[in-house]
Amino acid sequence: MRQNAFILKGNICYAKTKEHLVGVEDGYLVCVQGISQGVYPVLPEQYRGLPVVDYGQRLIIPGLVDLHTHAPQYPFRGLGMDLELLEWLDTHTFPEESRYSDLDYAKRAYEIFVEDLRQSGATRSVIFGTIHTPATVLLMELLEAAGVKAYVGKVNMDQNCPDFLREADAGASVKDTRDWLEGTLGKFRNVAPILTPRFAPTCSGPLLEGLGELQREYGIPVQSHLSENLSEIAWVKELFPWSECYGEVYGHYGLFGGEAKTVMAHCVHSTDSEVELMRRKGVYVAHCPQSNVNLSSGIAPIRRYLEEGLLVGLGTDLSGGATMSMFRAMADAIGVSKLYWRLVDQEKKPLTMEEAFYLGTKGGGAFFGRVGSFEEGYELDALVLDDTGIRTTRRMETRERLERYLYLAEEGGRIAAKYVGGVEVFG
Amino acid sequence: MRQNAFILKGNICYAKTKEHLVGVEDGYLVCVQGISQGVYPVLPEQYRGLPVVDYGQRLIIPGLVDLHTHAPQYPFRGLGMDLELLEWLDTHTFPEESRYSDLDYAKRAYEIFVEDLRQSGATRSVIFGTIHTPATVLLMELLEAAGVKAYVGKVNMDQNCPDFLREADAGASVKDTRDWLEGTLGKFRNVAPILTPRFAPTCSGPLLEGLGELQREYGIPVQSHLSENLSEIAWVKELFPWSECYGEVYGHYGLFGGEAKTVMAHCVHSTDSEVELMRRKGVYVAHCPQSNVNLSSGIAPIRRYLEEGLLVGLGTDLSGGATMSMFRAMADAIGVSKLYWRLVDQEKKPLTMEEAFYLGTKGGGAFFGRVGSFEEGYELDALVLDDTGIRTTRRMETRERLERYLYLAEEGGRIAAKYVGGVEVFG
Repeated sequence: MRQNAFILKGNICYAKTKEHLVGVEDGYLVCVQGISQGVYPVLPEQYRGLPVVDYGQRLIIPGLVDLHTHAPQYPFRGLGMDLELLEWLDTHTFPEESRYSDLDYAKRAYEIFVEDLRQSGATRSVIFGTIHTPATVLLMELLEAAGVKAYVGKVNMDQNCPDFLREADAGASVKDTRDWLEGTLGKFRNVAPILTPRFAPTCSGPLLEGLGELQREYGIPVQSHLSENLSEIAWVKELFPWSECYGEVYGHYGLFGGEAKTVMAHCVHSTDSEVELMRRKGVYVAHCPQSNVNLSSGIAPIRRYLEEGLLVGLGTDLSGGATMSMFRAMADAIGVSKLYWRLVDQEKKPLTMEEAFYLGTKGGGAFFGRVGSFEEGYELDALVLDDTGIRTTRRMETRERLERYLYLAEEGGRIAAKYVGGVEVFG
Repeated sequence: MRQNAFILKGNICYAKTKEHLVGVEDGYLVCVQGISQGVYPVLPEQYRGLPVVDYGQRLIIPGLVDLHTHAPQYPFRGLGMDLELLEWLDTHTFPEESRYSDLDYAKRAYEIFVEDLRQSGATRSVIFGTIHTPATVLLMELLEAAGVKAYVGKVNMDQNCPDFLREADAGASVKDTRDWLEGTLGKFRNVAPILTPRFAPTCSGPLLEGLGELQREYGIPVQSHLSENLSEIAWVKELFPWSECYGEVYGHYGLFGGEAKTVMAHCVHSTDSEVELMRRKGVYVAHCPQSNVNLSSGIAPIRRYLEEGLLVGLGTDLSGGATMSMFRAMADAIGVSKLYWRLVDQEKKPLTMEEAFYLGTKGGGAFFGRVGSFEEGYELDALVLDDTGIRTTRRMETRERLERYLYLAEEGGRIAAKYVGGVEVFG
């Protein structure tokens, strides 16, 4: 476990801005007390005494940030992909999630999820659990032990869901959530709780009211879903007829940005007023391209969001998304943006590789603070990538190797080492 | 090398029709002289003496058929994905392909391609080489030795391409092609030549005329590209103003179905008359979803093609597609069909898993004859799939395991054994 002060040497690559990818071949990345001291082509005098881990020609990139995923859905990833959101929830998701009332089952399932996450490219994740406090605490403990950083949410839902997965009422849901917060807040080094109303349809007004109060009392962040599917949006309008847009439902209760740091998954069909509200309140968009394809939701207009200055990161959204790979999320973000350009709006040019890489690192990382880059002062999350298994006759530059790795991470790529907050997770 | 008569035992799954997936748990797949004798839940008396290879709970599926790929583009897979077709050809493809004039380079590059193909899920492929006869023959020899079956084409192009990759003139191109056919036709057990005009813009009328004559003389099949990109289509109309549709350019010279078995890659933007011509002439469509996304081409209307009775299979289209994985091609075919439904035409419902699996096996397999199924009389190409690395708490049925494997082949899946034409390639 290298932790205090050390140097990683290799072909270093990170996003400075959406447009500007920095590549330093044979560079030095200096870490002191878990914080990057910057990247240097020549090691400055002051760091010459530090131990160097020399990764040769390996790529070294910031850890990837998954802004939206559901741990309890991992057992059925890649299944039931012939349905849209609301039918998919009833058929697959709710029955699976109900099993987490059994802590033994939760342990078996979450151990698989956490071990795979530990081995993946994600160093930070924002995670939905279930309504069950013991299972959610267990998930937090497993993540803590694995050394990956995460926000984890006990889910709230008190209406419009099956009896077997509904909390008794708003009062009970809020009380359970308060108890869970008291039991977990500040308890972990790597893991912290996040308020998690499932989505507007499954949350009564009194429940959202209570969660808003908890947010203000404890000052913790918020995650939920927003404008993923057209039927879902119509349903929200029926349930909350006073709302001008879906996002305003959360906003009305103080669960939509501003003082409450908030991430909303999907935003595929957000209206102009919703986009403006997100921008004004600093709400993060968790763009989940693979899930939006699998559940036939559509394509979120990410180019527009970037042009309008919204905060955007990427999510895998297991198990609407089939894969935990954040490399795939970056490649998919590029892919769907090309189809959006071709099929929807030729004014919105496709995302570049640089932009997708930014979204998967620094864009999402901002939700965790100074995370997702190697600039001085950033928390040091890093991946060391071995791409020798992606065989070729070509000599390639660092940028080319990175582009290729996004597309082929799972076909010949290998994560040779992983660091989170300056701590080596494996390597 | 198991070859003459044997039985594979496991959880067997194959497409009988587009709608009908057959699953036989603990079933017996009987192979005699390379030909399937059918699948049985209980082994018939007459086969009881044959040796059984027992794969336990493994899945056994037909080998996958890649109807369109470019071997020489493999070295730059996953690179240069920010361009559309015509710029991408000039920037990446043509310079790389020119290197195959050097047989040493060709050997280094094709050895990588062939070894990766051997290990992949594809048992049959339809492959573009380059204009270079020696390199193309080398590719055929390597494929033959690897034991995977393929049609391989020496590319023809005599106009509208860089000097370094243009054949001298139509006569020279046709003569080289004739010599190549004489040298390779009937020479291999696994590999056969296919006529390969690159695409209409790079082929003069006299060249297409000459290739049509070769087709009739030798009776061999044809492959090319069709209606992939809007600029390409406009260019073809300029070059061949007399043509009613792009496909008619090939058709005019006898290179578009009918007596000439033909596969056309892409067909993203085919007009009504082109679709009707393909149907009438029995032209195969090689649907390459990942490539069509990567090069911003669009989404081919596969539901329509199936409804209208066209012959359709799938292709990886390296390196417009970044990956050689035919599992990924099946999953991508489903994915883009969902976006087509959502964004283009809600009358065209998304492809089901069963349909995508059919396209990746029996649909494309038909181009090779009785290939792509385990029904009696089919050539026995088979994959044995180990999905124990895709860990879950779930007990799953065969169909669920197959669906999941399509999405997660590269993330925990492993091909445990591969048979082509009744011969074990590895296992």
